[in-house]
Amino acid sequence: MKFAPRLTVEQVEEGQDLAPRFDADGLIPAVTTDFTSGELLMHGYMNAEALQRTIETGEAHYFSRSRQALWHKGATSGLVQTVRELLIDDDQDCIWLRVDVAGGASCHVGYRSCFYRRVPLGAHDVEIALQFTETQKVFDPQEVYGDAPNPTKL
Amino acid sequence: MKFAPRLTVEQVEEGQDLAPRFDADGLIPAVTTDFTSGELLMHGYMNAEALQRTIETGEAHYFSRSRQALWHKGATSGLVQTVRELLIDDDQDCIWLRVDVAGGASCHVGYRSCFYRRVPLGAHDVEIALQFTETQKVFDPQEVYGDAPNPTKL
Repeated sequence: MKFAPRLTVEQVEEGQDLAPRFDADGLIPAVTTDFTSGELLMHGYMNAEALQRTIETGEAHYFSRSRQALWHKGATSGLVQTVRELLIDDDQDCIWLRVDVAGGASCHVGYRSCFYRRVPLGAHDVEIALQFTETQKVFDPQEVYGDAPNPTKL
Repeated sequence: MKFAPRLTVEQVEEGQDLAPRFDADGLIPAVTTDFTSGELLMHGYMNAEALQRTIETGEAHYFSRSRQALWHKGATSGLVQTVRELLIDDDQDCIWLRVDVAGGASCHVGYRSCFYRRVPLGAHDVEIALQFTETQKVFDPQEVYGDAPNPTKL
């Protein structure tokens, strides 16, 4: 599976060539939504190999920045993402994955979606209190990941 | 409107403090979906000021990397995005905007969504031909943007 070279704006925006743009670290952001509900599940990154494997296998692969390694989502947790549709944006620097999730959860904290907190709007000059949109975890991260290092960086 | 300092993983993942993580360029990725259809409209970036203005005004503001400037979406095109819900992810390094779009389009090429091309799955060792999922542009970019420089970089 080969990517095309990026030659002109017209080719990239209006053509049929797959000519993704990877950043200085060799990565492209990937946005993953639930195929059925449309909910945003996670935002990750792919390198060229992760994108190629995702296209070839139909299962979501990412590049883990915290582990600096190819990451077949669900290899540890069993929460594999089956890609139902894969799209690319106008300037081909972002991937959209529409997936079915085995086990129904995509977040390492244990929630269905990584986006389980709402930021209230309209606040001026005050500290914000986030509002939880999910109150029940789908799984216990300690059981699933054990002592694996937490990917969250401060 | 103030952001909290990032002190512990527990605070960032499980707390109510808004403590976003900006990257080395001072940016955080923002994923924008249509509030009604759930469709992914665009993937952009915010700096601290863009995020603050979005929260305060309820209209999407981004940071344009090509212009290196605060970007009130719709200021040129009229295609303002009204934020119906704003969420943040587990480790607070990504924003999700659920919006209503004035004029029904979010893509500078003229399509409804920036993600108007599908990548076929299962291909091995061949060049990919992207499939268009939108065939009609919502607006004529030449009419709307005139001679403004195209943001797509090769």
